[in-house]
Amino acid sequence: MNDLMTKTGASNAGLYGKDFLLTWEKNPEELGTILTVAEDLKMLRDRNISPRCFDSGLAISQFRDNSTRTRFSFASAANLLGLAVQDLDEGKSQIAHGETVRETSAMISFLSDIIGIRDDMFLRAGNTYMREVGAALDEAFADGVLPRRPGIINLQCDIDHPTQSMADLLHLKNVFGSLEALKGKKIAMTWAYSPSYGKPLSVPQGIIGLLTRFGMQVDLAYPEGYGLIPEVVEMAGNQAAVSGGQFRVVNNMEEAFSGADIIYPKSWAPFHVMQRRTVLLRSNDHDGLKGLEMECLANNAKHKNWECIEEKMSLTRDGKALYMHCLPADISGVSCNEGEVAATVFERYRVPLYKQAGFKPYIIAAMMLTNRFEDPAGLLHAMLSGEKKRVQ
Amino acid sequence: MNDLMTKTGASNAGLYGKDFLLTWEKNPEELGTILTVAEDLKMLRDRNISPRCFDSGLAISQFRDNSTRTRFSFASAANLLGLAVQDLDEGKSQIAHGETVRETSAMISFLSDIIGIRDDMFLRAGNTYMREVGAALDEAFADGVLPRRPGIINLQCDIDHPTQSMADLLHLKNVFGSLEALKGKKIAMTWAYSPSYGKPLSVPQGIIGLLTRFGMQVDLAYPEGYGLIPEVVEMAGNQAAVSGGQFRVVNNMEEAFSGADIIYPKSWAPFHVMQRRTVLLRSNDHDGLKGLEMECLANNAKHKNWECIEEKMSLTRDGKALYMHCLPADISGVSCNEGEVAATVFERYRVPLYKQAGFKPYIIAAMMLTNRFEDPAGLLHAMLSGEKKRVQ
Amino acid sequence: MNDLMTKTGASNAGLYGKDFLLTWEKNPEELGTILTVAEDLKMLRDRNISPRCFDSGLAISQFRDNSTRTRFSFASAANLLGLAVQDLDEGKSQIAHGETVRETSAMISFLSDIIGIRDDMFLRAGNTYMREVGAALDEAFADGVLPRRPGIINLQCDIDHPTQSMADLLHLKNVFGSLEALKGKKIAMTWAYSPSYGKPLSVPQGIIGLLTRFGMQVDLAYPEGYGLIPEVVEMAGNQAAVSGGQFRVVNNMEEAFSGADIIYPKSWAPFHVMQRRTVLLRSNDHDGLKGLEMECLANNAKHKNWECIEEKMSLTRDGKALYMHCLPADISGVSCNEGEVAATVFERYRVPLYKQAGFKPYIIAAMMLTNRFEDPAGLLHAMLSGEKKRVQ
Repeated sequence: MNDLMTKTGASNAGLYGKDFLLTWEKNPEELGTILTVAEDLKMLRDRNISPRCFDSGLAISQFRDNSTRTRFSFASAANLLGLAVQDLDEGKSQIAHGETVRETSAMISFLSDIIGIRDDMFLRAGNTYMREVGAALDEAFADGVLPRRPGIINLQCDIDHPTQSMADLLHLKNVFGSLEALKGKKIAMTWAYSPSYGKPLSVPQGIIGLLTRFGMQVDLAYPEGYGLIPEVVEMAGNQAAVSGGQFRVVNNMEEAFSGADIIYPKSWAPFHVMQRRTVLLRSNDHDGLKGLEMECLANNAKHKNWECIEEKMSLTRDGKALYMHCLPADISGVSCNEGEVAATVFERYRVPLYKQAGFKPYIIAAMMLTNRFEDPAGLLHAMLSGEKKRVQ
Repeated sequence: MNDLMTKTGASNAGLYGKDFLLTWEKNPEELGTILTVAEDLKMLRDRNISPRCFDSGLAISQFRDNSTRTRFSFASAANLLGLAVQDLDEGKSQIAHGETVRETSAMISFLSDIIGIRDDMFLRAGNTYMREVGAALDEAFADGVLPRRPGIINLQCDIDHPTQSMADLLHLKNVFGSLEALKGKKIAMTWAYSPSYGKPLSVPQGIIGLLTRFGMQVDLAYPEGYGLIPEVVEMAGNQAAVSGGQFRVVNNMEEAFSGADIIYPKSWAPFHVMQRRTVLLRSNDHDGLKGLEMECLANNAKHKNWECIEEKMSLTRDGKALYMHCLPADISGVSCNEGEVAATVFERYRVPLYKQAGFKPYIIAAMMLTNRFEDPAGLLHAMLSGEKKRVQ
Repeated sequence: MNDLMTKTGASNAGLYGKDFLLTWEKNPEELGTILTVAEDLKMLRDRNISPRCFDSGLAISQFRDNSTRTRFSFASAANLLGLAVQDLDEGKSQIAHGETVRETSAMISFLSDIIGIRDDMFLRAGNTYMREVGAALDEAFADGVLPRRPGIINLQCDIDHPTQSMADLLHLKNVFGSLEALKGKKIAMTWAYSPSYGKPLSVPQGIIGLLTRFGMQVDLAYPEGYGLIPEVVEMAGNQAAVSGGQFRVVNNMEEAFSGADIIYPKSWAPFHVMQRRTVLLRSNDHDGLKGLEMECLANNAKHKNWECIEEKMSLTRDGKALYMHCLPADISGVSCNEGEVAATVFERYRVPLYKQAGFKPYIIAAMMLTNRFEDPAGLLHAMLSGEKKRVQ
């Protein structure tokens, strides 16, 4: 009965009542709290103890881009804690009517506890939008319009994808035994070829932005011209220095794979392409977008050798680096002709990959819970001793 | 513990098991019950007491027009009481298949407690549709097809918008201290210029149909040719006479504003235009609709001076009339170039406007609760003394 | 308090933890369990006792074709037991991205208890898809990816429509008093004319596949060329022989109606047309599909006399056979000019038809409950004696 990981008194100051928008806005202790709360929630549910802590309440989702995994993870997390999901579908709303973000944010929040937002299409826009919503909620709460200020969870923006990177971190903690065990381990976050185009930068940025804080040796690898947002890359370097780790950028997949404990090969569109794409999307320039796509796909095609194949795997530590991906991956011969990863590699890591994905609902639930409860450890202990069954 | 507004024994006869389709079908005591139940529910939730009274049950929504505020208000209300929302999306259903309203109404209602309907596109159709659904439910219940007869809540039709007008009334009760305090107060329900077209008549009709019953002096103002449904206007006059208030129609915004305690400037399409539009919509006459829109927008443009600007505000009582709007408003220079209201006026009243909107979830919850519980006061008292927490 | 139909100890071995994909994969005792659990759940709810047995959990729905009745039935069933519905809308997901069924199935299932699937558009595909999902879930559970293996419920496929046929069977049990009373009764499952095209075969196949197991005399009637999947027809014949009933195919509506106790006139597309349609759908051949539709409608039009009219009704036992339909029916002069059934016939049976439809939510709830609880009788008894109110 006393086997929860969350210790009473663990710091929640940077989580309680605070939005979760970028992992680097939270200190390591707070990130640790998210992980342990997530593990505790999973443990409770696995024992058929219901961690429901809301008798009613809404968790609002706003997806400005398609989503399966994150949508179901958000719904699962909300449901586990007792919240009902209400989706803000802009196509069915009056937002087109010229309504301001300030107004919509207040209007959907009267009885809401949590707002999850995915907005990753426009560079320099998604995270900004979330902060705009946050400022509107602050104001509405200060003005007495809202009885509580709902917490915002970033479900992927142009800069970071914190529910993904935190689920990835929890996966690493499980595979390697502890966060401490990650010190000195080498991870290769590398670009990989994909026949599609315009994939967001948030996953690689989220990974280098998070894992450089745990003393790891982080290699970011991509073909020349495929850089990420410069400020995020610079920050990753600074963080590595502070945490006693290393961070470098290389333009060679093999070099990054060499001796790596973990590899994360994943396609993305170059930063400068995303900038041009954002301008074209904003001006509704369909011909321009089509042209950019053609140009970009032609460029991608020059780098088909950036594929995670067995030969490259053999360069990693003992040839057995942990392969990671946020999924869905472009698997050569399975979901496309030529893609990010060879089918044999993917298949060998399929089970750990799926387990990696399985942490996301609990990470999101932990973000919801720490946002709304000042003493998560006390709450979890009460749940454990209460032993309320989830399934009768 | 004994501070609920709802007195045990207050009449619920016209609410319990009865649809809420038009405010003027309810007597003043019943309207008062809705307001106090709404206030009680808000008070309970603000104290973190859960007013959940359903362990399961469905609240069905059918939106035949876009909606943000009302959609979220309905979802919030249902969730607060313990109902799950199930949306009847006609695009994803088999209704196009030639199915009758009688049949669909029964089919969606086997385990449903409440049905909320928005149908405001067709004049002489929306409210009629709701009654058709109601008659089908009556029949299905009488035939033993349904174990209970779900209650219908009008979420906006061609005639009335009762969840809006009742939320507006609750706002007025809060601002002026009581319903009694509204006696003799002057409200200007006036048309205002908008660059868009085809806005429903239900808000102005709902306002004059409700506020003429509380002894207020109601001015309805619009440019010549922008009249409402004649029967509703006539009824408003009769109601004002009965309640000791006044009702008049003027064709001058300044005259309506003069000495007003409350102003409600809001665009709508003229009644005769809505009639023509309904015919064209029914016959799928896209060219006709386009032509009508052009004609109508050109007409609107002649009345751009029907804008709620500071000069007009200064005509009101002490220059400080309460500005109201159902939102979203067409704010000049913010959501459009020229619109219903000057940005400075809107901004000054933004907080009370948002509070006004914040009453809607509780009004809808009160309509749901009084429809399904014979003794709302007793139920609320039990909730208050039960002290079940909404959030652990 | 002791009036439940479900006896403790009734066999649940073929239901607990098993998918419900085809009624003929379950033995008669198991089918009987579904019926009695459904009746018990209905009885509990009718007495305002909440049969909620999940404190949280997701019921996922995937509708690859439009649905009203089944969608609402699924939502009602899930809600009654305490599960929240999460719809997998392929248009809003990343599935188009080339993701495999194996992967998506795992990704949506981390915290899911039940998955309901409708997939009836492609012949030889819908049921296959469900089994593919099932195999993926088995594998993910065996691999430790999923904490539990969610149960799958077939909400209509190319072969069977078990939630429909089981609701139909429960209706027959109610009308005739018991399953035993069905022995020797004659049912005419006949094709009927419809002005629309491409209706699935799953209802007639489901009916002959289920009712031949209860000693009934089952006539399948259709115009030449309108045959069903041959294997299902053959199986129906074998089942009738085993159960002491009869099964025959006739090409004459009157012959099938003659002396029938029950008639089920319903349009469908011929098997060989569905085969061609599947090929055309798969190759996205819009012209081919249009051509096939024209050809098929022209063919249908030759059989407008396959309408359930009063003259034909008079051929049935005492002229009073029970008319059944899965709804919505093509009612001549109501939902179409010429259709499956005369308006007078339909109207006379409207109430029993609606009651027939009303069993579906309870059938689905019984499928969910028996899938997840090893001892449904014990659970239902505990619910009955617990007397937890559904509505306060």
